[in-house]
Amino acid sequence: MATRVGSRTIAFTDGPKISSFAAAVGKKEGEGPLSTKFDFIAEDDKMNKDTWEQAESALQSKAITLALEKSHIKHKDLDAILAGDLLNQCISSFMASVESNVPYLGVYGACCTMAEALAIGACMYDSGALRRFAASASSHFCSAERQYRFPLSYGGQRTPTAQWTATAAGAAIVGDTGSIKITHAFLGQMVDMDIKDAANMGAAMAPAACHTIATMLQDLDAQPSDFDMILTGDLGNVGSELLATLCDLEGYNIRTVHRDCGMLLYSKDQDVHAGGSGCGCCASVLCGPVLREMEQGKYKRILFAPNGALMSPTSVQQGQGIAGISHAVILEG
Amino acid sequence: MATRVGSRTIAFTDGPKISSFAAAVGKKEGEGPLSTKFDFIAEDDKMNKDTWEQAESALQSKAITLALEKSHIKHKDLDAILAGDLLNQCISSFMASVESNVPYLGVYGACCTMAEALAIGACMYDSGALRRFAASASSHFCSAERQYRFPLSYGGQRTPTAQWTATAAGAAIVGDTGSIKITHAFLGQMVDMDIKDAANMGAAMAPAACHTIATMLQDLDAQPSDFDMILTGDLGNVGSELLATLCDLEGYNIRTVHRDCGMLLYSKDQDVHAGGSGCGCCASVLCGPVLREMEQGKYKRILFAPNGALMSPTSVQQGQGIAGISHAVILEG
Repeated sequence: MATRVGSRTIAFTDGPKISSFAAAVGKKEGEGPLSTKFDFIAEDDKMNKDTWEQAESALQSKAITLALEKSHIKHKDLDAILAGDLLNQCISSFMASVESNVPYLGVYGACCTMAEALAIGACMYDSGALRRFAASASSHFCSAERQYRFPLSYGGQRTPTAQWTATAAGAAIVGDTGSIKITHAFLGQMVDMDIKDAANMGAAMAPAACHTIATMLQDLDAQPSDFDMILTGDLGNVGSELLATLCDLEGYNIRTVHRDCGMLLYSKDQDVHAGGSGCGCCASVLCGPVLREMEQGKYKRILFAPNGALMSPTSVQQGQGIAGISHAVILEG
Repeated sequence: MATRVGSRTIAFTDGPKISSFAAAVGKKEGEGPLSTKFDFIAEDDKMNKDTWEQAESALQSKAITLALEKSHIKHKDLDAILAGDLLNQCISSFMASVESNVPYLGVYGACCTMAEALAIGACMYDSGALRRFAASASSHFCSAERQYRFPLSYGGQRTPTAQWTATAAGAAIVGDTGSIKITHAFLGQMVDMDIKDAANMGAAMAPAACHTIATMLQDLDAQPSDFDMILTGDLGNVGSELLATLCDLEGYNIRTVHRDCGMLLYSKDQDVHAGGSGCGCCASVLCGPVLREMEQGKYKRILFAPNGALMSPTSVQQGQGIAGISHAVILEG
């Protein structure tokens, strides 16, 4: 059974374990500082498909398949797949699993979809409703760019605060075996500070990230130093600096342990401006280097609290603020 | 704790109860056969907002607020809101709850989003992670029409198999009090029979509806007559006839107890062709007449198994098949 600690944190008495994980990324991501930690790097971002949307879907499918192989199981051994992505009506995720014949739950938390899938799945596992599930998420620069911003061929200039949508996918298989345990989950609330610049997602999401992290630390009567890493994604360098400042105001100095997936995925010379973004960014960084190094004993306890910006091109054009949200899970090695 | 019955059905030992519910609909829906069973009928579908998207959001917000009032509670008394809609990046749902300061889980199952929210929420309640939650969904003819089909002012002709996106929203408050219990949940799988006509959603969804209904009946060793109603949504008249035929082939005659929200919401003279559709259709029919009449004792046991079509204009334009999905819950009065 799950119990509630403090105001909102959900604690599992015997939480589910991550039995395997895999990350599949695009060419640019495979040339970055984490290149050796991914399971699959695409030679061609089109993945031999006719469209960018199908390519993203193939990337997510690849991540799920590789994660299943590492657990020596097949799709049919899953009780459910929980997945989401940035494309309209989340088509990338359903196309990735449409042939699986497995119960499918579409979830949407923008760039923190991976944490939402893990948090919901962990609660459902805890109830006995699921015995083993896959959580996955993806994004693709080319499918996102033309949906959210400009035609690819337009080659528009990007502002310094803009982030680069990662061509990447991650998947984790969660059940009753594995060396990494999900001990806690946190369901984030929306925080809207009326940021209206879609090219400054870091500023839009930092307040929600702070809300989740500070509330969890209060609930658990913990300090940032109780974690080997507080992993956000994808605040980029603008949002990360804002988050650290906001956490200072709450009385928590997170600077030593804070890492952001959007800042880890690319090197400075890869011209991604404020950093990476997209559902696949934190999914691939988690299911690539982070869980791998956790399995190897490098980290004992991680607070995985990625961040989503709730908006669409329509809502931005209509003058709505961009609300941030941050779902989270605590992982113990 | 939840247990699994048969291959996939989830049974709750002490399932959550629906403590209150409300439905808010547009003008056309308020002129239909269910008009007296809704809590709110808009005089103007624009809901005094500047845009159709904001109007849809206001309708969902109205449904949630009215449902909360009936339970004599406020937003802050909820552990989470689970919601979704058809708009790109599900903006209607998050805009409806952005000021709630309540944990928010975006879910996406196209027109069966309401059942997905209830099923996930019930499992999370069962684990102890949630003590009380709201499940809600919405759609709006004007926001959907221009996103999925044609500019509103174009006034395009519609085919006989086409359905009419309902301007409607429904919300249910679920927790430990109330006279209607969620006894079982079922997570649907995608079924893609390669239907590519976006103006024939009934045909695209009927196979998934049959899969869910037949699997549940097998799992529970039950017959259709064990239910006062098997409620789908939104197959319309084309999909409903297909569903009955497909169920015949599985050995189940559902014709006597089957009702479809898409066929209940409008009268034949309202010119909606094959019937209603949209996330708000089954949400408002459930949270309007159905739960109301169940509370009054008219129904003892209902299988609520609405249906979603997983597609986007992009996926259809790219020649992808439209996969159907059907999540379900069993309700006992």
